Amino acid sequence: MKPYQNYLVTLLIILGSFLELPAQTVNKKVTSYVNPFIGTAAVDKKSLPGCTFPGATMPFGFVQLSPDTKHEVNRPCSGYDYNDNTIVGFSHTHLNGTGIADLLDVLIMPITGDVKKAADYKDSASRDFRSAFSHSQEQARPGYYQVKLTDYNVNAELTATEHAGFHRYTFPQSAGAGFVIDMDHSRLKGTGNRSAKIISAEIRIVDNRTIEGYRVLTGWAKMRRVYFRAEFSQPFTSNILIDGKRVYENKPLVMGAEGIKAIFNFASTANEQVLVKVGLSAISVANAKENLAAEIPGWNFDQVVVHAENAWEKELKQIQIEGTDKQKRIFYTGLYHAFIQPNNTADVNGDYPAADYTTGRAADKIHYSTFSLWDTYRAAHPLYTIVQPGRTAGFINSMIRHYDSYGILPIWSLWGVETYCMIGNHAIPVIVDAALKGIKGFDVNKAYEAIKGSSTRDHIQSPFGIYDKYGYMPEDLQSQSVSITLETAYNDWCVAQLAKKLGKKDDYDFFIKRSGNYRNLFETGTGFFRAKDKDGKWMEPFDPLQYGGNGGQPYTEGNAWQYLWYVPHNVPDFMNLMGGKKAFVNKLDEFFTLVDTVKRKNGNASGFIGQYAHGNEPSHHAAYLYDYAGEPWKTQFYVNKVLNELYDDQPAGYSGNEDCGQMSSWYIFSAMGFYPVNPANGIYAIGSPLLSKATIDLHNGKKFRVLVKNASKENIYIQSMKMNGKAYTKTYITHQDILNGSSVEFTMGPEPNKTWGVHTPPPVESW
Amino acid sequence: MKPYQNYLVTLLIILGSFLELPAQTVNKKVTSYVNPFIGTAAVDKKSLPGCTFPGATMPFGFVQLSPDTKHEVNRPCSGYDYNDNTIVGFSHTHLNGTGIADLLDVLIMPITGDVKKAADYKDSASRDFRSAFSHSQEQARPGYYQVKLTDYNVNAELTATEHAGFHRYTFPQSAGAGFVIDMDHSRLKGTGNRSAKIISAEIRIVDNRTIEGYRVLTGWAKMRRVYFRAEFSQPFTSNILIDGKRVYENKPLVMGAEGIKAIFNFASTANEQVLVKVGLSAISVANAKENLAAEIPGWNFDQVVVHAENAWEKELKQIQIEGTDKQKRIFYTGLYHAFIQPNNTADVNGDYPAADYTTGRAADKIHYSTFSLWDTYRAAHPLYTIVQPGRTAGFINSMIRHYDSYGILPIWSLWGVETYCMIGNHAIPVIVDAALKGIKGFDVNKAYEAIKGSSTRDHIQSPFGIYDKYGYMPEDLQSQSVSITLETAYNDWCVAQLAKKLGKKDDYDFFIKRSGNYRNLFETGTGFFRAKDKDGKWMEPFDPLQYGGNGGQPYTEGNAWQYLWYVPHNVPDFMNLMGGKKAFVNKLDEFFTLVDTVKRKNGNASGFIGQYAHGNEPSHHAAYLYDYAGEPWKTQFYVNKVLNELYDDQPAGYSGNEDCGQMSSWYIFSAMGFYPVNPANGIYAIGSPLLSKATIDLHNGKKFRVLVKNASKENIYIQSMKMNGKAYTKTYITHQDILNGSSVEFTMGPEPNKTWGVHTPPPVESW
Repeated sequence: MKPYQNYLVTLLIILGSFLELPAQTVNKKVTSYVNPFIGTAAVDKKSLPGCTFPGATMPFGFVQLSPDTKHEVNRPCSGYDYNDNTIVGFSHTHLNGTGIADLLDVLIMPITGDVKKAADYKDSASRDFRSAFSHSQEQARPGYYQVKLTDYNVNAELTATEHAGFHRYTFPQSAGAGFVIDMDHSRLKGTGNRSAKIISAEIRIVDNRTIEGYRVLTGWAKMRRVYFRAEFSQPFTSNILIDGKRVYENKPLVMGAEGIKAIFNFASTANEQVLVKVGLSAISVANAKENLAAEIPGWNFDQVVVHAENAWEKELKQIQIEGTDKQKRIFYTGLYHAFIQPNNTADVNGDYPAADYTTGRAADKIHYSTFSLWDTYRAAHPLYTIVQPGRTAGFINSMIRHYDSYGILPIWSLWGVETYCMIGNHAIPVIVDAALKGIKGFDVNKAYEAIKGSSTRDHIQSPFGIYDKYGYMPEDLQSQSVSITLETAYNDWCVAQLAKKLGKKDDYDFFIKRSGNYRNLFETGTGFFRAKDKDGKWMEPFDPLQYGGNGGQPYTEGNAWQYLWYVPHNVPDFMNLMGGKKAFVNKLDEFFTLVDTVKRKNGNASGFIGQYAHGNEPSHHAAYLYDYAGEPWKTQFYVNKVLNELYDDQPAGYSGNEDCGQMSSWYIFSAMGFYPVNPANGIYAIGSPLLSKATIDLHNGKKFRVLVKNASKENIYIQSMKMNGKAYTKTYITHQDILNGSSVEFTMGPEPNKTWGVHTPPPVESW
Repeated sequence: MKPYQNYLVTLLIILGSFLELPAQTVNKKVTSYVNPFIGTAAVDKKSLPGCTFPGATMPFGFVQLSPDTKHEVNRPCSGYDYNDNTIVGFSHTHLNGTGIADLLDVLIMPITGDVKKAADYKDSASRDFRSAFSHSQEQARPGYYQVKLTDYNVNAELTATEHAGFHRYTFPQSAGAGFVIDMDHSRLKGTGNRSAKIISAEIRIVDNRTIEGYRVLTGWAKMRRVYFRAEFSQPFTSNILIDGKRVYENKPLVMGAEGIKAIFNFASTANEQVLVKVGLSAISVANAKENLAAEIPGWNFDQVVVHAENAWEKELKQIQIEGTDKQKRIFYTGLYHAFIQPNNTADVNGDYPAADYTTGRAADKIHYSTFSLWDTYRAAHPLYTIVQPGRTAGFINSMIRHYDSYGILPIWSLWGVETYCMIGNHAIPVIVDAALKGIKGFDVNKAYEAIKGSSTRDHIQSPFGIYDKYGYMPEDLQSQSVSITLETAYNDWCVAQLAKKLGKKDDYDFFIKRSGNYRNLFETGTGFFRAKDKDGKWMEPFDPLQYGGNGGQPYTEGNAWQYLWYVPHNVPDFMNLMGGKKAFVNKLDEFFTLVDTVKRKNGNASGFIGQYAHGNEPSHHAAYLYDYAGEPWKTQFYVNKVLNELYDDQPAGYSGNEDCGQMSSWYIFSAMGFYPVNPANGIYAIGSPLLSKATIDLHNGKKFRVLVKNASKENIYIQSMKMNGKAYTKTYITHQDILNGSSVEFTMGPEPNKTWGVHTPPPVESW
């Protein structure tokens, strides 16, 4: 939708606000509950912040225009820390919730004062133009961000379209007003093998209101090309260009590598508003210009704000809920965070950065990247199958293109290219889930080729030749061996399911057999999954509290306790391995209560309940496992505990990295009462609904409803349940129940009903 | 011309060789004089090798398929050192004569023996599969190279089209025959800020006769993307893939970054010939495939050899000469080296790598790069204006595209992008020379915009703001200040000439004034160009023998003696500065005789005659300066000395780097008796012709002829001269004389004729 088409909507909104209608009569917008600051601070000094950013973006858009409070440090990776008190500028691309930094392209900072003096420095490569700010003079909502930069007495407002950022700055009277454009801004300078290195950069003055430029860099994304075109509403009267070593005055361009910056100067009158609109592209300046012209042809900032707000309102109101305002703030902010990515990297003409570093051309103008799949396959992608089925097809088509150009499906793709971050091949459950759920818009046979290829073609962290030879990853041949074995076994189960559906019996037999490989690393003596070497010997010493990180240890960002529960595709078999239901429950009880204060934890583990660590993904399904062992009230207890204690509507609202929508999606599902323990079997285990009501507008025209009687802080236990008006005692619902537009009714109470659901655990398969 | 069109030619050649016609009756091909080994060895351990490569390439082609004898070391930069006795493989791209290494893409090495054992190693990233070889079992001629790899008993033959390499290997009987493909091969690993770093690489098996792949890397060229498709005539039966850490057997692809290699295995019968053809592209695998299909559709190796030989014969026979066989070998090998680059980086569909790291599309399918302009503007580009006027227009159009996408004209462009190697902006003389010589095929007004822009837009090594403020580069603000000031003053003179021609009076006045800036660094006391600081004080201490390198000293790859002579655009004014003709001649005499054995020389200085160092470019015009001072016999003496003593038809045939055609072009001009001291004023100073006859087929249909009577080793002095039959006493000819198809006749003798040419020095301008 083009901005001007929202003119009527703008009018209605303005009218509405003039009339000051009470909230009861005009439905309050769901976007009003979104607090983009949730996740911008850490719970405490030991834990990870959510690593979210407060700035303006469109749903799944290419541009995220947001303030950056830090410059040199690799945390938070989103550029913004709520505890900081200075802002260095506003850059156009940001990651939402990741643990590794990248992007932060084309930083713009308004300044006032003596600009020439400001530029006269030797250390231009490291210098910034930061200003103090206060949260009392700052606000953020979907598609809009505002802050007062107190050092310069400039009010900054930001909004965005899919491929462009739009800035509005209100200046004081100043002879030395201006803007800094910093092409060197990055968070990863010199911090190891993912450190950002600018290969080439340039800023070019087209005329006194227009600049263009680019940077090519290697960092977390191995190689990114970033092009921009910026247009100013106010002509600048002079400029200063900096190439990292030297300062030039009133020249038409500057180029080099590190340290490329520019300062544009003009005289401002009191309260003068200066607008800056910036188109971005991963392909060329010409495309950035085309993107900008297509999306922000004029200069109406408020119109673009309304356009962005409307886009968010449309996306977020697909789920209508009732609950406390705090619950609504956490829920809708979570949905907002879930819909920030994956990002459409294709330009308006369809050009996109392909995985083999070529330029692709997408007929549908859509090519998604920012696939944080080790995180998001768990709950974010299952959520997308319900509320974003069209985009889910787009995700999968983008993944298949990635497979075609690179040879395997994406593992963690950023700016179109593979970063090999984390382990497993979790595009597989995403694709299989969508295929089995009947989502249209992609070629299932081609998708099957891609998942089979990605399950058999050896690659980094996935040496399938070794896996097939030993039936597990021997730690001496492939580190993170326990985590990789468990996650690969799950991926294999997914491949088997689609093979079955497509009638590929040999493939099914191969993959269903391989999906049992978790058994090869289960040691009955200790009751843990443990690492073996290539001779089949258990690796010593073994300490289930010992953490691994991202290599050098058998467990990935966790310990043996946290990885113990990773057999989502066959919990019954796993329970037998553990010695039956009772032993399984005893171990789960210990998991949720065992406190260890001695061992050094991995930095990604936080949000603890015993050894359960909600701040990172390996634990995410664990609380739901009591359902499988006939003690669903314990699932209800712990799920409720996580919902209430490990989420908040404050900046420190997440117990760890938001992880591109996964941390939020856990909340969204769990608050409605169910969660996809196995993200690809069409089954959702029932937990403890938090909200009093939830209605999902399905894309088939039906509505799925959840009604929760007696919902309250104390009433955390399910007393009874109905499905479409009939008594229901299963501890799960199916995806088909949702698609059918079923109504689910929970009745809650303060004490467990230990008869409900105890004999109907979630099954292995639903299809 | 497509290969099959050469069928008749092939037949005639084969017939000719069967008949064994005497050389007198069948005109011997000029390509038969080319010895591609010239320049592959250094004169001695202290000097630089020519850095040429002996392999197969087409004139100005994208692919140079050639053996690499070394792997890790940054010298010679061409990959091949005649003193080495092992070959690591045959890679598809090579630089001719540069002092910095890059390229060497897609290395292929045939092997025999136990392949699996060979692959079973830990240090795969550094391991190679080298074989011994002997020069007695090696040959090279334009478009063809052959060597016996004695470790494997494999005979290797190479040829090339513009975008593809064609290999023919003759194997012994071996169960373990095969090929290694190495995507990690590079010469610059870990040697500083130009060190090669593989960002991403992949090898993919398409079928058992076809592989594809790419690598993206940063090195001397800041970022290069290299894509290939290889087709084998013999199916391979198994493969081993290596990702730098792990070895995989019979898998369909391998990807990662450093250390990507593959081994393809098959059983060979005795004397079995296996062909490999490899298409390359800077844009995509799809383009590499299209390039290969367009240029080598079949499997006729000999046909492609003939196609390449014919292309070279056509180019080289534009100049027909008479002289000794040794002179012919040096001359035609020089012309061959001059025509290796600049290289057409555009694919057959016109896609090319643009200077802003985008993909451009050239309507004429031509985009040249490898512009070693600090070297080649001196003599190589003037030579191209005579024998490659069409390509000269192509060079300039490519330079203008570079200006459009990057903002300044190329300085040293490689693979389409700027390396900022060396100093000055010497695309300017190339363009001005071509424009003033009336070469058609480019937009002179657009070209003027580009040269003016590149002379006023501050950039790395060219801070024009500082230059304009001080009238020179102060060494404390811009190192290499003397060399940059002198070379910029010359560039400015060139801009002024085109401004004059285009009627741009203000521009002319500005640039002609700036072209006199050399005066601001001439110190009468010492008689040298010296560095000043920003306060106008001479920098101390000053030692005219002290060398500079590429920064940190006032002189670039030379000393004050070698940079003393750099006022090619106004020798008369310079002579006055020096104190007149006599003082000028005395200083020149001292220059050619002063031997310094103490000072540490810059590594690029070699080929000494006193302080004259023919092994690097700053000296190249100096011997001709006696013409300007009325003592042309001394020019004749020293030019002859250089021709005879500093060129040879042996591997150590160049006294320094061949430098992309410059070292050869000096010989080509000088051996014919003239040289462009100022490469853009249409004037060639007369030296001492070496050949007895030379005829240039001009593109206007006329022939320019040089006849040298009494040419011999002893007869180095001009006794008299005629132009078109009339006595001629000027010490120069003009470009118009050449275009007119004039005949020049020299009569030589063993003693100087000190009356000839003493009163008619070359003027400042010819137009």
